[in-house]
Amino acid sequence: MAAPAAVSPLAPASYPDLPGIDGVRFSTGAAAIRYKNRTDVMLALFDDGAEVAGVFTKSKCPSAPVEWCQARLSGGRARALLVNSGNANAFTGKTGAKATKFAATLAAKATGAPASQIFLASTGVIGEPLDASKFEGILPKLVKNARADGLLEAAKAIMTTDTYPKVATAKAEIGGVEVTIAGMAKGAGMIAPDMATMLSFVFTDAPIAAAALQALLGKSVRKSFNAITIDSDTSTSDTLLLFATGAAAARGAPEIAAANDRRLASFKAALDGLLLDLAHQVVKDGEGARKFVQITVAGAASAPAAKKIALSIANSPLVKTAIAGEDANWGRIVMAIGKAGEKAERDRIAIWFGNIRVAHKGLRDPRYNEAEVSKLMREQEIDIHVDLGIGAGEAIVWTCDLTKEYVAINGDYRS
Amino acid sequence: MAAPAAVSPLAPASYPDLPGIDGVRFSTGAAAIRYKNRTDVMLALFDDGAEVAGVFTKSKCPSAPVEWCQARLSGGRARALLVNSGNANAFTGKTGAKATKFAATLAAKATGAPASQIFLASTGVIGEPLDASKFEGILPKLVKNARADGLLEAAKAIMTTDTYPKVATAKAEIGGVEVTIAGMAKGAGMIAPDMATMLSFVFTDAPIAAAALQALLGKSVRKSFNAITIDSDTSTSDTLLLFATGAAAARGAPEIAAANDRRLASFKAALDGLLLDLAHQVVKDGEGARKFVQITVAGAASAPAAKKIALSIANSPLVKTAIAGEDANWGRIVMAIGKAGEKAERDRIAIWFGNIRVAHKGLRDPRYNEAEVSKLMREQEIDIHVDLGIGAGEAIVWTCDLTKEYVAINGDYRS
Repeated sequence: MAAPAAVSPLAPASYPDLPGIDGVRFSTGAAAIRYKNRTDVMLALFDDGAEVAGVFTKSKCPSAPVEWCQARLSGGRARALLVNSGNANAFTGKTGAKATKFAATLAAKATGAPASQIFLASTGVIGEPLDASKFEGILPKLVKNARADGLLEAAKAIMTTDTYPKVATAKAEIGGVEVTIAGMAKGAGMIAPDMATMLSFVFTDAPIAAAALQALLGKSVRKSFNAITIDSDTSTSDTLLLFATGAAAARGAPEIAAANDRRLASFKAALDGLLLDLAHQVVKDGEGARKFVQITVAGAASAPAAKKIALSIANSPLVKTAIAGEDANWGRIVMAIGKAGEKAERDRIAIWFGNIRVAHKGLRDPRYNEAEVSKLMREQEIDIHVDLGIGAGEAIVWTCDLTKEYVAINGDYRS
Repeated sequence: MAAPAAVSPLAPASYPDLPGIDGVRFSTGAAAIRYKNRTDVMLALFDDGAEVAGVFTKSKCPSAPVEWCQARLSGGRARALLVNSGNANAFTGKTGAKATKFAATLAAKATGAPASQIFLASTGVIGEPLDASKFEGILPKLVKNARADGLLEAAKAIMTTDTYPKVATAKAEIGGVEVTIAGMAKGAGMIAPDMATMLSFVFTDAPIAAAALQALLGKSVRKSFNAITIDSDTSTSDTLLLFATGAAAARGAPEIAAANDRRLASFKAALDGLLLDLAHQVVKDGEGARKFVQITVAGAASAPAAKKIALSIANSPLVKTAIAGEDANWGRIVMAIGKAGEKAERDRIAIWFGNIRVAHKGLRDPRYNEAEVSKLMREQEIDIHVDLGIGAGEAIVWTCDLTKEYVAINGDYRS
């Protein structure tokens, strides 16, 4: 296995202060599922229960815990979330489904909750059976030691190839009463032999019913977790769960039943910002990433067309290697626009790096200065802006560059 | 710019003997369009004309020569093909269209043919104006020096980042009379700053009408040039032209008007084989390629579903880096199957590397021996076989691995 990577150069300089969320306690433990000398299990407890919403990988071959959560989501209620790193319990057939059920049963027993209100996630090796009995010994201690201020430690326990834990928090108001949101994520790191997962868990004390929560989450991810890409590969285990304890109701926050309730304006904005923050942190910890790239496509025939073109640019190995090479290679951006299959007229396309227009009306912009663009390309954050000039469709996506380190991390570990 | 790569380790050991094609003469010259001290222009002359068929990039931003050829193809007749390397004449707006027209006018003048029967292709830098006047000085000499045995030299003149020229030939019979096919290709090499093209030109003395030729070509590329991928990126200039001089008619070959004529059986098979040979040569010269990978997907819901899944596997950076790392990482293949979006049932999937089944019924195959698989992964040619177990759809695609050299070639040239 390759030596563990140093912390990504794009990592945040410091962690935010993480306030507790009323009604949520966290606990972590070391079950030696795969890793030694580190925590690899995280439990989040909702003593009075929580409303729950979730979005999952679109993979046709999802992991056993993804299938478990999808089947329990219709109940809308959660009492605990149990997550392990080191083994994804994916492509493990009926054995995997059994392990999932066993884990939920153990957590139910330790917490006194029904198994149908235990949510599960696993990240790590694909195709190796998960020994759920490893949860058995530590679960009672996890329940006993759970603390309101354990979110950062919980974020560390779910890391695989992440080089730093990803956490975020935000405040909002509902009906004039302050509510808090806090969450964690682990990245799209994929390493020996099959680590492959984006997991994110978000918690709030806002009193919002599950159906409304689901609608908010489904909309918010479109412009955050569904607008990022590391290498175009999709894990079998991607899971984002949002839990609302409703504890703020005791402080006077009104109970919200519908996503279109106007009193949610502040909460929606805070949730959008928090999910975008976590999504950006995932990109900034992309394997081998040295540059954080924002790609804006405007003037497309429609918003979905703009997003397809933006993702075509973001996923192009030739664009990504050019950015790694600090080359403002707009020819490759034209190539990626062209291959997206959406409407584009070459002679109307304009392309900017930062505020420098490099291409205009189907031609290299004669006014652009190579030295100025080169300076800009040496920055850690790169903005690419494309205007197709044919409509009003717009989209933004975020990605990272493709470096030799990416290939080393994903290809060299046998050597 | 990075030092020129050594010849790909996957290059063929020797070139085939290339017979002349009656009615075709080749010529090459050095016009210093971008490269120094090498040929960069190729002319193929059809003294008595030829029927012509073509397929082109699906890019929505095609190059000026692609647009020129597409507009002239309906005429069905060609008198000459003029190709340059060093400049793709792509994303050059109206200037590019003018350069194309000027090049055709010059070639028409030199050959005495109508400009509408001059076919053109360009490969090299995107976004820089092509100075077509550079053709002016050398075209009369190119016409004068054209020779029947010049195909290999012509293949060398159109190379950009290719590490070896790609040629192939085949014999067939039509109505008991021998006909010959021969062709060349240049690869998907894409290097500083924007080389981006797959070009292939195929010639035959068979007397086949343009409409029939077009139907044959359109069908044949599905299992050859449209079943290969280096890095999922599509050039603005991809062009494949097939010219039939009909000279074999003088030796008694019957004139063929329709693609479904039964007398074409031998020709079809020979054309399929030749295009597949050229397509494989393009993959084997993929940038940084060290492994040639065949991916077969069987048991899919339909043939298009099988191809989509096969391409999802072939284009996955995680699969490609695993192969570069000589790792039989079937978990990443499951991931790529899952993300393709086509019907798949995890518990029915089986995966083989070579003849070793590594996964079966949703689980790691307990019988597979890691040492045996590791030995197989050290080979230059890797066969991956997936059976989805749900239908009869099947497809084969070919690709190469993703190495640090790929990133170096495409990202390092500024350093």
